[in-house]
Amino acid sequence: MMIIMKSSATPQDVERVIAKVKSVGLAVHLSQGVEATIIGAIGETHSLPTDQFEVMDGVEAVQRITQPYKLASRQFHPENSVFPIDGFSVGGEELALIAGPCAVESRSQIIETAHAVKEAGANALRGGVFKPRTSPYSFQGLGEEGLEYLAEAREQTGLPVVVEIMSQVQVALMVKCVDVLQVGARNMQNFNLLRVIGETQTPVLLKRGLSASIEELLMSAEYILAGGNKQVLLCERGIRTFETATRNTTDINAIPVLKSLTHLPVILDPSHSTGHFDYVAAIARAAVAAGADGLIVEVHPDPAHAMSDGRQSLKPEKFTAMVKQVSQIAEIMDRRLASVQAPVH
Amino acid sequence: MMIIMKSSATPQDVERVIAKVKSVGLAVHLSQGVEATIIGAIGETHSLPTDQFEVMDGVEAVQRITQPYKLASRQFHPENSVFPIDGFSVGGEELALIAGPCAVESRSQIIETAHAVKEAGANALRGGVFKPRTSPYSFQGLGEEGLEYLAEAREQTGLPVVVEIMSQVQVALMVKCVDVLQVGARNMQNFNLLRVIGETQTPVLLKRGLSASIEELLMSAEYILAGGNKQVLLCERGIRTFETATRNTTDINAIPVLKSLTHLPVILDPSHSTGHFDYVAAIARAAVAAGADGLIVEVHPDPAHAMSDGRQSLKPEKFTAMVKQVSQIAEIMDRRLASVQAPVH
Amino acid sequence: MMIIMKSSATPQDVERVIAKVKSVGLAVHLSQGVEATIIGAIGETHSLPTDQFEVMDGVEAVQRITQPYKLASRQFHPENSVFPIDGFSVGGEELALIAGPCAVESRSQIIETAHAVKEAGANALRGGVFKPRTSPYSFQGLGEEGLEYLAEAREQTGLPVVVEIMSQVQVALMVKCVDVLQVGARNMQNFNLLRVIGETQTPVLLKRGLSASIEELLMSAEYILAGGNKQVLLCERGIRTFETATRNTTDINAIPVLKSLTHLPVILDPSHSTGHFDYVAAIARAAVAAGADGLIVEVHPDPAHAMSDGRQSLKPEKFTAMVKQVSQIAEIMDRRLASVQAPVH
Amino acid sequence: MMIIMKSSATPQDVERVIAKVKSVGLAVHLSQGVEATIIGAIGETHSLPTDQFEVMDGVEAVQRITQPYKLASRQFHPENSVFPIDGFSVGGEELALIAGPCAVESRSQIIETAHAVKEAGANALRGGVFKPRTSPYSFQGLGEEGLEYLAEAREQTGLPVVVEIMSQVQVALMVKCVDVLQVGARNMQNFNLLRVIGETQTPVLLKRGLSASIEELLMSAEYILAGGNKQVLLCERGIRTFETATRNTTDINAIPVLKSLTHLPVILDPSHSTGHFDYVAAIARAAVAAGADGLIVEVHPDPAHAMSDGRQSLKPEKFTAMVKQVSQIAEIMDRRLASVQAPVH
Repeated sequence: MMIIMKSSATPQDVERVIAKVKSVGLAVHLSQGVEATIIGAIGETHSLPTDQFEVMDGVEAVQRITQPYKLASRQFHPENSVFPIDGFSVGGEELALIAGPCAVESRSQIIETAHAVKEAGANALRGGVFKPRTSPYSFQGLGEEGLEYLAEAREQTGLPVVVEIMSQVQVALMVKCVDVLQVGARNMQNFNLLRVIGETQTPVLLKRGLSASIEELLMSAEYILAGGNKQVLLCERGIRTFETATRNTTDINAIPVLKSLTHLPVILDPSHSTGHFDYVAAIARAAVAAGADGLIVEVHPDPAHAMSDGRQSLKPEKFTAMVKQVSQIAEIMDRRLASVQAPVH
Repeated sequence: MMIIMKSSATPQDVERVIAKVKSVGLAVHLSQGVEATIIGAIGETHSLPTDQFEVMDGVEAVQRITQPYKLASRQFHPENSVFPIDGFSVGGEELALIAGPCAVESRSQIIETAHAVKEAGANALRGGVFKPRTSPYSFQGLGEEGLEYLAEAREQTGLPVVVEIMSQVQVALMVKCVDVLQVGARNMQNFNLLRVIGETQTPVLLKRGLSASIEELLMSAEYILAGGNKQVLLCERGIRTFETATRNTTDINAIPVLKSLTHLPVILDPSHSTGHFDYVAAIARAAVAAGADGLIVEVHPDPAHAMSDGRQSLKPEKFTAMVKQVSQIAEIMDRRLASVQAPVH
Repeated sequence: MMIIMKSSATPQDVERVIAKVKSVGLAVHLSQGVEATIIGAIGETHSLPTDQFEVMDGVEAVQRITQPYKLASRQFHPENSVFPIDGFSVGGEELALIAGPCAVESRSQIIETAHAVKEAGANALRGGVFKPRTSPYSFQGLGEEGLEYLAEAREQTGLPVVVEIMSQVQVALMVKCVDVLQVGARNMQNFNLLRVIGETQTPVLLKRGLSASIEELLMSAEYILAGGNKQVLLCERGIRTFETATRNTTDINAIPVLKSLTHLPVILDPSHSTGHFDYVAAIARAAVAAGADGLIVEVHPDPAHAMSDGRQSLKPEKFTAMVKQVSQIAEIMDRRLASVQAPVH
Repeated sequence: MMIIMKSSATPQDVERVIAKVKSVGLAVHLSQGVEATIIGAIGETHSLPTDQFEVMDGVEAVQRITQPYKLASRQFHPENSVFPIDGFSVGGEELALIAGPCAVESRSQIIETAHAVKEAGANALRGGVFKPRTSPYSFQGLGEEGLEYLAEAREQTGLPVVVEIMSQVQVALMVKCVDVLQVGARNMQNFNLLRVIGETQTPVLLKRGLSASIEELLMSAEYILAGGNKQVLLCERGIRTFETATRNTTDINAIPVLKSLTHLPVILDPSHSTGHFDYVAAIARAAVAAGADGLIVEVHPDPAHAMSDGRQSLKPEKFTAMVKQVSQIAEIMDRRLASVQAPVH
């Protein structure tokens, strides 16, 4: 960390900054130039907030040299993280393809969808049972009943299940029932939740917040990693911008940026990032071409009667067509869609 | 709600939409024009998601006529909501002036600050004990120990205390210790938390999320109101935009817009909305001139040694100067700063 | 256009709106329901601003049914527009691949680059001679001298040249010298310039403004089309958002959205949309996978000595590698890179 | 400017950066620490783009110490710039209050409005004659005919006139007819126009672009100042964000930030920054409370028949009420509304 002093800073100002740097256990490297005096703070600075220095008399600016995250950084872990999700692995050659409805609505709906997405080539099943809804009057999910239906769908198809968790009080129940814990965009900075999840050994799908920066996404991943859970899968799902032609703006740049900054696998959710089924296949292809490690896609057998997100859900036949296109792009990228075996009974 | 059909819609498409409108218990008003057929859905539509219709064959667009919130709407509650906060009331003639440090750091720090802000004219004390920090390595708050110090500060000064709550598991403890539960920006859409808070009778200060729309803020208030807790105080605290000269962009428009849409009181947080102490007083004056019902301001006796948010905290003497300016503006607006009596022992 | 009246609107309010609709030459379709009265305005409404009605007493909202652009709309022109650019055509099976330096800096630089990009597979040459620079102290381009060097580069390689125009006073000169007029992001709503360009017959590459909506981009295209110039090529080049990890945010959604709304060809500029050479190839692949009709890429023989945009320029060898990857994606999309023949002397 | 080298940088990388710093005429200050080597570039760095260094091998980051603008900076010009506008002065104790219609629509409309705003307390008259319209089918202004009507309005009321200029070809005509040249948001980075205006001696009202940063606004001012025209009045008019409840988001922070960074006067346009007449008075009060040097407000005698911007225009009686409130706030801020004398005939 470098602290740049104002040209008007007094020797006392410089002394006070140096004393403060030393007081937090860092070494000092002083550089006095004609235009500016610069104080380098050397040591474990990633946990040090910059504003303690910015506020001091005589300080012009504070510049970090190292990233504020460590466990998530590729700098200290150059190899890709590859970890298994019941039947296949993410982060390596295999692409994750998670598909299913926004919400589990009934036993028949989730079982029908599970078979349909499995047949089309998906290797994991999504389906929410606790739903974060903007309106208190909207359908809030089936709760535990939904978890039972998901268990049956997994039993029949062999697909691991990915389910959103909304509160730390749900953790004990969820880790027994699901294969991947999904942290939704609105909870990306629910730090109490992140800490509790970090203490489990269940893989986590961490979605980027609507207006979270890439650095903040990595800091949230750091919370989970710091707790001891190393199986974090990052997910770009669109950010909020001024553009209203689509529900969100897919930040496709985030794919190569994240792949360069972190060793964690990165997937994309084209359903939320566009908000309209017409655009899902194009953005799914783009994600894989940009280097994503997988996709999570909303599929519903009857979108017009979906209780939520019908507008952005693919019918199974459109999903099947999408998978074919994505497979071809994957091949060019030296990747392939992982396939999951049905359980033998 | 009006459903506008495409010019290419078939009579069967129109029939299906009409059937669906009726199936959710709404009446139909059909209007067939030369350019477009419009189907009005009449009744309790505020709880109905528009996308169930948008996804149907032949539908061009769906337009709401009524707002998706009801209890928070001024339409059904034209008078301002005015409610007491231990010693004064918000939403009426009196302005709330909540001040104190970002975090409770020690007994002496919070007690010294409480006396200083009281003397300057504040009528409530803020101070976090559970801190939502971007980094897992940053100071996370004193926890219960901090609540004890706050109780002592209240005992000495008579100031009610405003404390952030981060998880539903903290509710039982918090309602015993604090006068106002603060829901931070990152938890504005933590719906589990909102629901639990809605079941208490403690006043709530609900902060707008970093990228939450005004409508979403009102929907989150609706969660709390729907639970039975009518004492919700809304807080604009800056939104995230492309501008980097300040930490956030104060959405000053939100003050008159919210005052027009809702009966709930609205305050502004110029510390977070600017991120720099140099700009706090100007934006505090602007807020009151725009019609805000109060302010929440970070004050620290020694910002250079604050454990968080030092850059945006006012020293007590600057806060005192700010209060004088704000009082003058308040007078023009036919408002006045509420004052709180010290407890008699 | 539908004008929705407030429930409190009086019969006189309704009468006044009807009279105004008729006064601008439109027919009226009146629909009086229980909850709302709706007045349909039927006819040529795309040129009618909605706010003339929004401001009238008793009006709740005004909703357009038809788009505010017409010549650019796919609704009235379902087939893709395909037009020639000296040696190949855009909008059809062939992909445009425009490459070259941000600015023409010297004769040798542009000629060397032209040969290099031609060899790598580019089919057009870019190079600015009038440069829009944020700072008045930065290099502003070589002006007419630069046009001479471009002419020589075209003569040697056969590549058509794409050059930015910044002012209506440059039009006469530019149409003599260049094959495609580029309108930069900062001039997307320089309506005087658009009008003058609309009167020429030179193909136009119209870049989306930094914070222009997709609809505004199409409205700017409409200015050119309305003047009689039908050869407009749209270009997504990244929008401004809160994210600072990249220079801009590539709005990859804009590719399928534009292809659905308009018949005009759409290309992407991954150099500006990312701002960093490390991410250009990934986003170039994504663009073609998403359905773009081409790319415009900054290539410089020596980025470290480029007078502008060095950070986002590819060296020729990296560009060559990018073209290979893009070609493979193109094949899957049933497209191919157009090739240009060197002139025979 | 400080160039921070990567920990992996070789001695040759360092040498090359040093050589490049020297080659552009700057002195070098080398600081080699344990964690990082930093190369300070000392001298006139404000005209030097950082990306020439960012792209070099071994460079981690480049940090400016000085601002990229100079003539606009308060650092080199600590006193407020105060300059006259026919009858009063801006930037000092007097507040500018510019009012009038979006567009001059007819002789009677502008003359009636001029008298009304003068009577209410305005000290300058606005009115567009060349209108930047998103749609080519919208009313584009009366052109020169409008300038004649404005001249008559000025003759009758004594109010100086503020008129938008859209192209460099209009400069010669405009400087003869208008008192203040307005550069609209869409032309803030029309650098050709800025350069030509910089060569005149007519005061300039420079509006911030829809998504321009505060620094970019100051860079555009620098273009005009560098040409020799020192009379630049900056105008915050709202920025584009995700919020759709208002047309734009008033960046009220920009007022104190600009007052701190520059000596130029700063005004606010609450009509465009909110887009709705209901919110104009609240934001006008807020602007003056935040320290603005004036306001520009849209007033129309009959908003429902305005050819543009009717929704955000005040009727004269509402404007009169707004002026009274603003005057009271001004007094607290030790400012007063300048008044203009009617011409004696």
